[in-house]
Amino acid sequence: MQLAMVDDRIQPLEEVDPAHLDRGIFFGDGVYEVLACYDGRIFALDDHLRRFAASMAAIGITQVDIDLIRRRILKSFEAAEIPHAAIYFHITRGSAPRRHVPPPDLKPNFFLTVTERKEDADAKNNGIKVSTYPDLRWKRCDIKSLNLLPNILARRDAADKGCAEAILVDDAGLITEGAGSSFFAIFGRNLKTAPLTANILPSITREFIIKAAANVGLNVADESLTPQHAAAADELFIASTTQDILPVVKFDDTKIGDGKPGPNTKRLMHEFRTFTRQPS
Amino acid sequence: MQLAMVDDRIQPLEEVDPAHLDRGIFFGDGVYEVLACYDGRIFALDDHLRRFAASMAAIGITQVDIDLIRRRILKSFEAAEIPHAAIYFHITRGSAPRRHVPPPDLKPNFFLTVTERKEDADAKNNGIKVSTYPDLRWKRCDIKSLNLLPNILARRDAADKGCAEAILVDDAGLITEGAGSSFFAIFGRNLKTAPLTANILPSITREFIIKAAANVGLNVADESLTPQHAAAADELFIASTTQDILPVVKFDDTKIGDGKPGPNTKRLMHEFRTFTRQPS
Repeated sequence: MQLAMVDDRIQPLEEVDPAHLDRGIFFGDGVYEVLACYDGRIFALDDHLRRFAASMAAIGITQVDIDLIRRRILKSFEAAEIPHAAIYFHITRGSAPRRHVPPPDLKPNFFLTVTERKEDADAKNNGIKVSTYPDLRWKRCDIKSLNLLPNILARRDAADKGCAEAILVDDAGLITEGAGSSFFAIFGRNLKTAPLTANILPSITREFIIKAAANVGLNVADESLTPQHAAAADELFIASTTQDILPVVKFDDTKIGDGKPGPNTKRLMHEFRTFTRQPS
Repeated sequence: MQLAMVDDRIQPLEEVDPAHLDRGIFFGDGVYEVLACYDGRIFALDDHLRRFAASMAAIGITQVDIDLIRRRILKSFEAAEIPHAAIYFHITRGSAPRRHVPPPDLKPNFFLTVTERKEDADAKNNGIKVSTYPDLRWKRCDIKSLNLLPNILARRDAADKGCAEAILVDDAGLITEGAGSSFFAIFGRNLKTAPLTANILPSITREFIIKAAANVGLNVADESLTPQHAAAADELFIASTTQDILPVVKFDDTKIGDGKPGPNTKRLMHEFRTFTRQPS
């Protein structure tokens, strides 16, 4: 009898819950998105759905109707009645006994959560500490896939050091991005962030920050920085969907500026709020 | 209300099956092994348990008793009554609402299947075709983790080309290994395979093949090959736990030798059987 064992419980393989046979768990064979909601509105939904469709196409999940995904998101957000929510969702290629090459007729699995999105006021007001970690990730970080173990290892290392984020450094000694965020440095009136390549997630928050930077009169340059270069910046910050902008006041052992969130970062945070307060 | 949605079904987050909150699916935050059983005996169980313990340690899953894993394997193999079985098992860091840094008290999740291991007689007798694909994997392939999306993409590409395996080629233009196998080339009396690094799984089958090679009088060299070099070999084969040795008779567009399994490969296959026929 072909069988499965879940913890200590043995059962026939045919009777095991399909959740245990998800290719998401066997292989990380799926893609995901995270949405932020402000005041009862989902921010930048179209952008996230566009990126999600691109991620699905990149790994060859082709039969999913993106409008169905949109309807599920709207329905669950409405049901949750959480005005400041984080919406996480993923699609995997489906459930089947483990084999690398998927059966042709698999039905993709969809999973979503709506949870309270808590802004970390202390982090926003006083800034965070970050630490560097080797970028061990695969070579297609432009795909928002479920293969996130290197990010987890980096974040655990950062947490052990009392840091809120790990800043990833590639083999060439250049910063790519944070384990769960984009990374930005300000030198005078110049805002610098790594150029988008296959090694970097095309962050949607990044796009809005570039727009905000133009609005507050900062020049934006796509430029990869070494940790030494970044540590010498006037201001640093990270950006992510759920927290938008978080000022960085310590980078490894180096205090940034006067150890408090800098004026340009504050201006960007203020400008960013003008985007999230209006229907996007 | 914090909620979850599974396909189209909405439910409170607290009531969702923990299988849907497995860090294995959110992040691939887990490690696995595959065992081959011959004639009612599990082959090289101790070696696999040792590697499994090393993988768990490498990602910081520390509280799992390896003897408990061994007992579960033996119990389920006995219950299945499949003499020629493949046993797959994984451990993940546990189930919790999605957050990168794991809560401190998580209980790891264990999952195992025992299925019929079918040897592919045609592939063994007549050899297989393989195709090359970029090695997109992360930088710690020595850890047998659940982050296998690049392997899936490679295998799908190979399947599209009518090939049984994808041979991965790194940025330096060198072959690392197969998407789910080790890769070997024979030139005269010399057996060549890539040296073990962080980019290569320390294959247990590889160790037995090196032993078999010594027994049949082949010299073994740790050497990374380019696809051009490999295509010029007298014989090629791949090796994995479930299929042990499979001769390669076509490499991309190049016929290897006379297009049939070579004499040294056959000798190694015969020698390998002496290992699997006796208690290991």
